[in-house]
Amino acid sequence: MLHLDLSNVSQFLPEGWRVREENGLKKAHEYLMEGTGAGSDYIGWVNLPENYDKKEFARIQKAAAKIRSDSKALVVIGIGGSYLGARAVIETVTSNNYNLVRGDNPAIYFAGNGLSADGLSEVIELVKDVDFSVNVISKSGTTTEPAVAFRIFKALLEERYGKEGARERIYATTDAKRGALKGLADKEGYEEFVVPDDVGGRYSVLTAVGLLPIAVAGIDIDALMTGAREEMERLHKPGMDNPAWQYAAARHALYDSGKKIEILAGYEPSFRFFGEWWKQLFGESEGKENKGLYPASVEFTADLHSMGQYIQQGERLMVETVVRFDKNHTKISIPDDPENVDGLNFLSGKQLSFVAEQALRGVTLAHVDGGVPNILVSVDARDEKSLGELIYFFEYSCGVSGYLLGVNPFDQPGVEAYKNNMYALLGKPGYEKQKAELEKRLGC
Amino acid sequence: MLHLDLSNVSQFLPEGWRVREENGLKKAHEYLMEGTGAGSDYIGWVNLPENYDKKEFARIQKAAAKIRSDSKALVVIGIGGSYLGARAVIETVTSNNYNLVRGDNPAIYFAGNGLSADGLSEVIELVKDVDFSVNVISKSGTTTEPAVAFRIFKALLEERYGKEGARERIYATTDAKRGALKGLADKEGYEEFVVPDDVGGRYSVLTAVGLLPIAVAGIDIDALMTGAREEMERLHKPGMDNPAWQYAAARHALYDSGKKIEILAGYEPSFRFFGEWWKQLFGESEGKENKGLYPASVEFTADLHSMGQYIQQGERLMVETVVRFDKNHTKISIPDDPENVDGLNFLSGKQLSFVAEQALRGVTLAHVDGGVPNILVSVDARDEKSLGELIYFFEYSCGVSGYLLGVNPFDQPGVEAYKNNMYALLGKPGYEKQKAELEKRLGC
Repeated sequence: MLHLDLSNVSQFLPEGWRVREENGLKKAHEYLMEGTGAGSDYIGWVNLPENYDKKEFARIQKAAAKIRSDSKALVVIGIGGSYLGARAVIETVTSNNYNLVRGDNPAIYFAGNGLSADGLSEVIELVKDVDFSVNVISKSGTTTEPAVAFRIFKALLEERYGKEGARERIYATTDAKRGALKGLADKEGYEEFVVPDDVGGRYSVLTAVGLLPIAVAGIDIDALMTGAREEMERLHKPGMDNPAWQYAAARHALYDSGKKIEILAGYEPSFRFFGEWWKQLFGESEGKENKGLYPASVEFTADLHSMGQYIQQGERLMVETVVRFDKNHTKISIPDDPENVDGLNFLSGKQLSFVAEQALRGVTLAHVDGGVPNILVSVDARDEKSLGELIYFFEYSCGVSGYLLGVNPFDQPGVEAYKNNMYALLGKPGYEKQKAELEKRLGC
Repeated sequence: MLHLDLSNVSQFLPEGWRVREENGLKKAHEYLMEGTGAGSDYIGWVNLPENYDKKEFARIQKAAAKIRSDSKALVVIGIGGSYLGARAVIETVTSNNYNLVRGDNPAIYFAGNGLSADGLSEVIELVKDVDFSVNVISKSGTTTEPAVAFRIFKALLEERYGKEGARERIYATTDAKRGALKGLADKEGYEEFVVPDDVGGRYSVLTAVGLLPIAVAGIDIDALMTGAREEMERLHKPGMDNPAWQYAAARHALYDSGKKIEILAGYEPSFRFFGEWWKQLFGESEGKENKGLYPASVEFTADLHSMGQYIQQGERLMVETVVRFDKNHTKISIPDDPENVDGLNFLSGKQLSFVAEQALRGVTLAHVDGGVPNILVSVDARDEKSLGELIYFFEYSCGVSGYLLGVNPFDQPGVEAYKNNMYALLGKPGYEKQKAELEKRLGC
């Protein structure tokens, strides 16, 4: 079960900070439960771990089994929330080197999340000689990065397997009713999964968006949903002992006290992309109206030898949130060295996990002493159930936290700015006036 | 040749900002050139691209050739500056998926940079059935993470190849004269390379620390040094047109004006770990005395769909520094779709790199309009020479910038805090009193 430890927070806050957050928390909770807050068209994720479409879930499992039987690789085409959740769960549960250590599981290659020709060429090359399938994930079907990648991989599949064969290998996760990709999928007869209207991209990991690639990697999506559901049941109970209330309150009080950056720290290399998912969740939900903690992430103990100096003694702007997995998959006992060359024989025979645990405790106290408040989130293991708990915990906390901050946690009005400029510079029809203005500024 | 563009900086600064930095820049430059500033025992990197040990360089190339001929994998054991530089260069020049696409080059596995049992077990498993060598990189030989990993891989090699065979496969990069690893290497007869006394870890990528693993990956270290040397020659000339002066001045003026975070943005997935190297360089050099820009990194355009919202509209604390590679390795032309399902036929036949370039320009203007100053660093390509330029450019800029900030850019006093706590909690002899105190605080 997920456990939250705030024992290294209160000393950084004025007395009575919890009490001062209580009304805001009640209101935020109500917004999420009753759908009465800003952005309430996008709170389908709140009850999702219970209310998900069971028939579609079974189809996801069936499709995953088919892909696992007829494909050595799955190309997942999507950007932002359409790939970060799946990549986060796959890597955290298995390895950041999933594709090197996957055994008989299909390789999973993420494409269409950028505009690098070299990045895309690499995936094309990697599937050159293996049977593969494509999961294209896009609500509209018109976002530039995934749309360009899909044009290419669709052509590759049709060339390799013919038009008939290709349509058996394309899985479209898209809008239930409308949009370019929906239209194409209907026409071509691709198997379709739904990006729900009431779940935004950054909250979509427990929909088909995340679940299909996760299941293809051989990960138990039933257990993932169970973990999320159990966490949901806990967090839907109002009260100051609700861990999501506590986390949101601490973040908000610390932000109010002048903190500007929240660093998510893990101690497992496989956790790196969970940090990327978490950064989207909080950054995109709260980073608006010139507000919000800037979300950053680090991998300890590695980054204690890179970012550690700054965290210990740089600007005092940071809050540190650590995610701990209580159990490891494997055990390593530290060998004895009769000559004790490195002076570490006091560790001989000890488990490496024991050393890691003392590191975590020592780091926490060092950073606290350096003026960095520390929040500790513990779960049982790098397994599906714990990941489900973590995902729902951060999602719910983020909703509450966004409301405490006074923003709409479910929109992302700032994402359009670069897109519009890019479309104009690319010469998209209808953007002629903006193009001329931008080119003038660029001195073309 | 590296090009710096500051045209999107001045509008965020009071008039005359360059002039106000000039005296500080002259002084900082002199500190580096004459060795008269704080931390001047650690400025061996300043002339390194010219003054490096040519005989050792030849030995590095020879050792790399031997490893490439007798090993399918190299395990690189080191933490912080002892792995980030090598990983940054290898991935940026080849791919973030180097081990998947390496062809006939040996796999490179980085170990001993953390305390995860699962992470370490994974590398053990990956070399189980292949011939491998080990490059252990540690000035002292007593740092916990690499020392523990070295105990394990040394034992594995000795088990596999016998004591004689193992010593032919262990390469020790360590202190020239003293220390635990130096003593062991002398006794065992390992081939030795030097971590120079006057080059700190974060500045060590162009010493044997970085060069041996880089060369093993099949990367041309001669060209890397050439790029660094050419950049060095440019940057050693004082003057306000010196790009390192300009970058350092802009960072300093922006910091003085209230900016708190510098985000390094790249548009290539392979650039991710260069960002990690850069974060250590700047974070560890400047993050002290409660000062310094917090270094963060993003991968565009992917992260425009995660961190983009915050950058566009969150707290106005950020400076964005973009690294652009003018050329790609590969070309991808966007296919036409007769039915234009996604509405992107206005891009048909266009190069993907053209789209990426318009994205970069559009993003820059969008972020500038959102209140984020933008610094653009361009180099020719993702090749050795350009990487040499980038490395030296950031190193020199960082030295200048640290002096402008009024700190010693070459120490890292804050890194000891966690280590001391960890040693105490682990029961290291001599730490008994501290252990009791810490355990009391932890409520044990």
